[in-house]
Amino acid sequence: MSSSLLNTLIERLRVLPTVGPRSARRMALHLLQSDRAGGLKLSQALSEAMEKINNCQQCQNFTEQTLCTVCSDSSRDASALCVVENPADVDLIELASGYQGRYFVLMGRLSPLDGIGPDELGVEQLFQLIRSSGVEEVILATSTSVEGDATAYYISDQLVNDDIKVTRLMNGIPAGGELEAVAGSTLKQAFSLRQTFPAD
Amino acid sequence: MSSSLLNTLIERLRVLPTVGPRSARRMALHLLQSDRAGGLKLSQALSEAMEKINNCQQCQNFTEQTLCTVCSDSSRDASALCVVENPADVDLIELASGYQGRYFVLMGRLSPLDGIGPDELGVEQLFQLIRSSGVEEVILATSTSVEGDATAYYISDQLVNDDIKVTRLMNGIPAGGELEAVAGSTLKQAFSLRQTFPAD
Ligand SMILES: [Zn+2]
Ligand SMILES: [Zn+2]
Repeated sequence: MSSSLLNTLIERLRVLPTVGPRSARRMALHLLQSDRAGGLKLSQALSEAMEKINNCQQCQNFTEQTLCTVCSDSSRDASALCVVENPADVDLIELASGYQGRYFVLMGRLSPLDGIGPDELGVEQLFQLIRSSGVEEVILATSTSVEGDATAYYISDQLVNDDIKVTRLMNGIPAGGELEAVAGSTLKQAFSLRQTFPAD
Repeated sequence: MSSSLLNTLIERLRVLPTVGPRSARRMALHLLQSDRAGGLKLSQALSEAMEKINNCQQCQNFTEQTLCTVCSDSSRDASALCVVENPADVDLIELASGYQGRYFVLMGRLSPLDGIGPDELGVEQLFQLIRSSGVEEVILATSTSVEGDATAYYISDQLVNDDIKVTRLMNGIPAGGELEAVAGSTLKQAFSLRQTFPAD
């Protein structure tokens, strides 16, 4: 490659998931030939995001504040707590469901083979939040994958002696499914038809 | 989305070709969750490349110097000039062929529908280079697509009254093909079997 800066850029683009050497080269050449302003704006957005985004001290979701917008909104219903795997799930539920409670974002799901156990998901913080803030219902909205189910069972097990209603989104969510794969209207219905978990 | 910086990053990632809203979100979340150091290095590589990479004053290839490494290498054979569409083609030929001449990089190919005419490809600079620097053979290595062929015909037409040999890579390169799609050994053979263009 005639330019070592170009070589470096191509190499660095490969930190992006699913980007191999060919598409990295295509991306770099496209930006250089047709959209340098866009490339500079992307550079700026990347450094700001990497440096300034942290995890909400209450729910673990990404935010650049101490508390995220949901946790700092006093009009939200503190008696309901919806547990999800990813920040994207919060967005989906916010868009689709009319849900007015709060969230806890695990930032993953139990996956022992990948070294992801309860500690990596921050479950101690979850149980502390549940027990200290008047939560009456915990809605488990982890995916219906094997790991998402295992995560839901683990959490409900730990709450079995607390006087807390535990429900799970099931209706209309296909087995193995991520919330992402479900239409908004289905998600809304899954919320209104949520079931006690585990089933008796 | 809980973080406006995250929103901005997702939007900015879409300057990359083939990256839609979903994969942009996946990329942003992956970097935030698992590779912030990689994200920062990418940001740095992007801004350096966008700001410092320019076009070689002689061959138009990308370089951060005035002249690219090939043009500034006095051991290269100045009597042969290989005309290619893209910087990537130079890399392929350098890797595969043993070619010792110089290049001219059009940074595209004739495509009137996209507003890409001779001026956009810098052909005046090409003809000036050919006529002023003792070039004896021009090797047209544009793609064998309709536009790549049209580009090759256009260039050879303009040189018909010059005492310059014009050849084209044909052997083993399938019609419609980019150099990228050809194996290194085939490219090497196409070089050694290059033919006078247009055929008599
Ligand atoms: Zn929060
Ligand atoms: Zn050059």
